[in-house]
Amino acid sequence: AIPQAFYTKQTGAEGIVTGGAGGVWISAIGHAAALFGLKGRVYSVRKPGSDHAWGDAFGRVWGVDVLASPSESTRVGKLQHDRQGPDSGSIATALAEAYEEATRNPEVKFAIPTLMGHTLIHQTIVGLEAQRQLAAVNEAPDYVIGSIGAGSHFGGLIAPFVPARIQGRDTRFVAVEEASTPSLTRGVYTEESADAAGLMPQVPMYTLGREYSPPGVLAGAMRYHGVAPIVSALYREKYISAVAHGQVESYSAGLMFTRAEGIVLSPHAMYTVKEVIEQAMRCRESGSADTILFTVTPAVSTESTPYDALLDGLLHDEKPEEASLKKSLSRFIGRN
Amino acid sequence: AIPQAFYTKQTGAEGIVTGGAGGVWISAIGHAAALFGLKGRVYSVRKPGSDHAWGDAFGRVWGVDVLASPSESTRVGKLQHDRQGPDSGSIATALAEAYEEATRNPEVKFAIPTLMGHTLIHQTIVGLEAQRQLAAVNEAPDYVIGSIGAGSHFGGLIAPFVPARIQGRDTRFVAVEEASTPSLTRGVYTEESADAAGLMPQVPMYTLGREYSPPGVLAGAMRYHGVAPIVSALYREKYISAVAHGQVESYSAGLMFTRAEGIVLSPHAMYTVKEVIEQAMRCRESGSADTILFTVTPAVSTESTPYDALLDGLLHDEKPEEASLKKSLSRFIGRN
Repeated sequence: AIPQAFYTKQTGAEGIVTGGAGGVWISAIGHAAALFGLKGRVYSVRKPGSDHAWGDAFGRVWGVDVLASPSESTRVGKLQHDRQGPDSGSIATALAEAYEEATRNPEVKFAIPTLMGHTLIHQTIVGLEAQRQLAAVNEAPDYVIGSIGAGSHFGGLIAPFVPARIQGRDTRFVAVEEASTPSLTRGVYTEESADAAGLMPQVPMYTLGREYSPPGVLAGAMRYHGVAPIVSALYREKYISAVAHGQVESYSAGLMFTRAEGIVLSPHAMYTVKEVIEQAMRCRESGSADTILFTVTPAVSTESTPYDALLDGLLHDEKPEEASLKKSLSRFIGRN
Repeated sequence: AIPQAFYTKQTGAEGIVTGGAGGVWISAIGHAAALFGLKGRVYSVRKPGSDHAWGDAFGRVWGVDVLASPSESTRVGKLQHDRQGPDSGSIATALAEAYEEATRNPEVKFAIPTLMGHTLIHQTIVGLEAQRQLAAVNEAPDYVIGSIGAGSHFGGLIAPFVPARIQGRDTRFVAVEEASTPSLTRGVYTEESADAAGLMPQVPMYTLGREYSPPGVLAGAMRYHGVAPIVSALYREKYISAVAHGQVESYSAGLMFTRAEGIVLSPHAMYTVKEVIEQAMRCRESGSADTILFTVTPAVSTESTPYDALLDGLLHDEKPEEASLKKSLSRFIGRN
């Protein structure tokens, strides 16, 4: 967020506007805006059955406006609010609202939390640090495994290891998708917008289509319709492989990891861990000593945990109906 | 928690039991119990108007029992539950319940999250790391400032710097209390129990008395009736000074810090920051270049923040009635 606020300030704009779905990105953009004296505004996905948006309490801390999306202050927000109801929000809609505001108001610039090349470049700090830490113990990864929503964290993690892979080193990069939103494993490579309304410039990526409505799974960040262009290009050229895991197996793997390692995981980290355990079991069976690199993030509340639904027996897997997937993808037929 | 579980296992006991008020300590003891194959049980303060305890969701993750305190499964819990109601819980009561269970059941041992010498020794890792980091930039602290509930974090932070202070170096250690629970600044030095029921062995400390009911302030961890014996002894010998700050000034200082530094603080960190800002302003006025050491912990939710009450104008300061303080302290008259 800080580089995006810096360049926004350079243009002479008064404010920065963005879309998101929670406190982490709201805090990041709010702090960045404060550092450069910018007004901040965030369209954040509305909590079901509520007037509040995910993470809106953090907007107050930083002094930025947080609007529950779909809102009634933009054309795309109002249209969706009226037609599909206030609980129909998604990150792609929130981004559409922010982008619409930025295109109509010359005093504000648009910021984006994921997907685009510049956000992946900022995230490479994760991979660069991992590379240094591994070098300090004379290691390099045979596997780099990460879950993907839009792919910026995974892209940043693998980036420093990609040049050696292209030059022939046998490093395997594995992207883990939510089975209900299988952009890489079941989507198409085409031009598509980052936002739900198709306002933003189209970029080449693997996607299920910006209008795709995934079945309800808990990990909101894993339900994004597309994958960052850089990650998509590497997948197309077969430098990356992809797998899709369901939430029940991922949460179960996550709980096993938590009890062994002492870290209560965020939902998207559980998908990473599911695949890591699979690869580790394969290593044990084959007797190979592969080095597996992955990152996890902790859960962010001490009052509830992401495992509640699993332990209550309320968690079930969601797979897209073939017909729904075909309908969403039919727009692209003949385009790739 | 891990050393306490290790020594519990050494005794041949089947389980470990403790009291607390939230997910962090429940996670710590739950993970420690799992590592050594012990059953875990935690009495945790009941959420007002609820059957649930603070942090009980984390008990499920680790597979430990969490009972809302005051519970009806111990004599002290049931007595308090019936006489003062289910919402009358405190850490001191939760500890009393855990201790009662440990004294009645030879198969379980008691663990304690704060106050005692061994917990302070474990916490010295914080001070030792700070000492190394400062040494790496050729610095040593002129001030070490920290908020105190029962004082284990503060005690661990200052411990490595105490020997030089005793040998004459002019390092100032400042303990920051909640004005509604002024154990050091308005309490007495006497023998008192860690728990509300007086079941545990008495230890020498500054305290307001184990029956002291502080006025309602938000920071639960700051409302404990006593201060760790080691910290109390250092205060009595004047190696430590103490100040008391109210919650409005502390939260306001915390919000200023958050907006400047980009870290949303936990409530007890705000008390630390309030005093740090005061000392930094004094340095600016006097032109001195003192090095101030302090630690902060971040808030642990992305859906609400500790600043909500401040920003809603609902926060007000609480001072103990002189009569209430006198009543609680009257038990000790003539004892010191």
